[in-house]
Amino acid sequence: MPIRRPVQGKLLYAQSGGVTAVINATAAGVIETARAKGVKAYAARNGILGALREDLIDTGRESKAAIAALRHTPGGAFGSCRYKLKSLEANRAEYERLIEVFRAHDIRWFLYNGGNDSADTALKLSQIGKAMGYDLRCIGVPKTVDNDLAVTDCCPGFGSVAKYTAISTLEASLDVASMAETSTKVFILEVMGRHAGWIAAAAGLAGNGPDEAPHIILFPENVFDEAAFLARVKATVERVGWCTVVASEGIRNAAGQFLADAGTRDAFGHVQLGGVAPTLAALVKQKLGYKYHWALPDYLQRSARHAAAKVDVEQAHAVGKAAVDYALAGMNAVMPVIVRGSDAPYRWKIEPAPLAKIANREKKMPKGFITRDGFGITAAARRYLAPLIAGEAPPPAKNGLPVYVRLKNLPVARKLAPWTPA
Amino acid sequence: MPIRRPVQGKLLYAQSGGVTAVINATAAGVIETARAKGVKAYAARNGILGALREDLIDTGRESKAAIAALRHTPGGAFGSCRYKLKSLEANRAEYERLIEVFRAHDIRWFLYNGGNDSADTALKLSQIGKAMGYDLRCIGVPKTVDNDLAVTDCCPGFGSVAKYTAISTLEASLDVASMAETSTKVFILEVMGRHAGWIAAAAGLAGNGPDEAPHIILFPENVFDEAAFLARVKATVERVGWCTVVASEGIRNAAGQFLADAGTRDAFGHVQLGGVAPTLAALVKQKLGYKYHWALPDYLQRSARHAAAKVDVEQAHAVGKAAVDYALAGMNAVMPVIVRGSDAPYRWKIEPAPLAKIANREKKMPKGFITRDGFGITAAARRYLAPLIAGEAPPPAKNGLPVYVRLKNLPVARKLAPWTPA
Repeated sequence: MPIRRPVQGKLLYAQSGGVTAVINATAAGVIETARAKGVKAYAARNGILGALREDLIDTGRESKAAIAALRHTPGGAFGSCRYKLKSLEANRAEYERLIEVFRAHDIRWFLYNGGNDSADTALKLSQIGKAMGYDLRCIGVPKTVDNDLAVTDCCPGFGSVAKYTAISTLEASLDVASMAETSTKVFILEVMGRHAGWIAAAAGLAGNGPDEAPHIILFPENVFDEAAFLARVKATVERVGWCTVVASEGIRNAAGQFLADAGTRDAFGHVQLGGVAPTLAALVKQKLGYKYHWALPDYLQRSARHAAAKVDVEQAHAVGKAAVDYALAGMNAVMPVIVRGSDAPYRWKIEPAPLAKIANREKKMPKGFITRDGFGITAAARRYLAPLIAGEAPPPAKNGLPVYVRLKNLPVARKLAPWTPA
Repeated sequence: MPIRRPVQGKLLYAQSGGVTAVINATAAGVIETARAKGVKAYAARNGILGALREDLIDTGRESKAAIAALRHTPGGAFGSCRYKLKSLEANRAEYERLIEVFRAHDIRWFLYNGGNDSADTALKLSQIGKAMGYDLRCIGVPKTVDNDLAVTDCCPGFGSVAKYTAISTLEASLDVASMAETSTKVFILEVMGRHAGWIAAAAGLAGNGPDEAPHIILFPENVFDEAAFLARVKATVERVGWCTVVASEGIRNAAGQFLADAGTRDAFGHVQLGGVAPTLAALVKQKLGYKYHWALPDYLQRSARHAAAKVDVEQAHAVGKAAVDYALAGMNAVMPVIVRGSDAPYRWKIEPAPLAKIANREKKMPKGFITRDGFGITAAARRYLAPLIAGEAPPPAKNGLPVYVRLKNLPVARKLAPWTPA
């Protein structure tokens, strides 16, 4: 049936999945643009769950300054969630409930800020809206530290975790270099990346050439080869005096097991979760006898707004603004993606891309980004990665700490009966 | 015998023990002040080992810009070491070797930048110099992230790790808060502090009141009480929705065992080193069933020059300058210490203190800094800690990364036979 562009109505914005240092910059872009165009913007509390529960936040109750401060505040200001809607066939009721909530509040534009799962949800909602004769525009808004979304050149959130990882690798390596004579010889930094080595690759920006840290990067794209790894550690320590290793959490052995799960058990015999770094450290100690240290920054890496990349903040804000522009222009089932014009000088722009090309797909790191020996990044990887960590965008500080905003997050009055999950 | 003030001679500077984000700012203070006074400054490569080995670096070969850049470069620019000289009785030969090296190079001022062990070494060297009739002034220069030196109000290096820890606690907690509805409910950050909880205490600056993170701080000053800890985690999750825990690496159970060593074994049955955080996480999972994440920043925390406290950088530089001033004024066996004038506005000055009052002593955190329930910091702790993390002093950046200097570290020609360790 024909869909007219709604002449009035509200916009609903929701955050999905793991948050980033700059997802709130996207929220600022969305809300500021909606306000500029006279459109009322709601947010769903805790992502799609808030939409299902009719737990909506009226962002109009927040001051202009509070919304502007989202640009420099990490985490997800409205709450996010890990909740994947089932397929239309398996649970059509959930999709219908969402349309019911949208209808009750005259929500005509739905902006879902997440990864490829969220793109899928937004796509399905646009379809069911049509099927139910409800005039709705659904826009996916890209976000993920994993940098694994299809079509877009990069993902808002990735540049900042990449920058944090490169800085941390550089700084910790200076520490190790000064201690190596009598103390730590091998330092292992474990970074996020269950399926793709984008974040680990970014650590490679900290140095250049075989003697500069990181000396070894372990990618989930490669099978972990214990003998080759140990030989490289040994050769590096003997040549340089010390060795920095950056390991993706997702590396696996030839049997396909995650190293993080391989072997370590707690006092009760349970497999101990987490920790490629301690596993590798124990291996280095047992087989080579070197003194080691390891670090696992975990959430610190993806929330480190204090060290965010300026270009990442700008892109995060820009996709938020574009999402509203696209929605109000009547586009549907699209995502604003980042298109690279050139590497150096770095040029980029935002364009719409169909959600159907993004939903449920995963962008792998190109094979040409990993050196032939498997332990480093190539010049092509550097050309791609370098502009993404560029520029500083420090948050305002007071008393030595960043000033981060906490929104009031006042609820919109409910109009429907409570939702009962299937 | 009477000691005249040397009218000529050289100054030797050495870095000792674990390095910090600002120890090189002290080196800059030393070298810049020596240059201004027309005194030649050598540095020992890898701390006291370089002095024993006659492996000296001529800092006069470095440009003014390179020395100035030490002010914003983390790690130990000349190398440090973990090497404690034995007592005079047990190994007098080592002390005599040092005097022999000093005599060969006409080193009349020795500045040893470290903690309480280094203060002890500097004190003993000043004594043996006298006994051997060699005119030498020894100055200890304070440095330690542990903040455990006696007499001085605080230790250069501590303010920056304190700031990093408070920022990281704040940022990761915003992340957890946004994910807690469907994912991580308990986040555990493990920080340095084997014997004293200064760094963990600093995390307390990230929030205020029972609902703000960190909700629980675990200090090595307290015996770990599993039941009380779990009850507090549960109550916090039920009230706030999530819980941030900051744990000192040095916490112990009632039997005096480090929690980090308690129970976790690798696949070979060896005790797995490191990890209060995973141990606590496993406990939370087993006993309360909450989803958790944990982080262990390790060297990242003490090398994070990108997030250093301005006041810490200034104090680090000031103790370096004062050490040279004291040495050239003929003082001996002293350390420049930081004296606090007032908390707010924060006022401080540098004064000399006898090494005899600092060597081998350890400053504990005052009992009045920990709340009665054992899980937080008091107003007195906040008054003490708050000024130490104040101010930003970002390093210059290029291509998105801090620009850190690498010195040439050119050696001074040897004059003696190689050293043979006893």
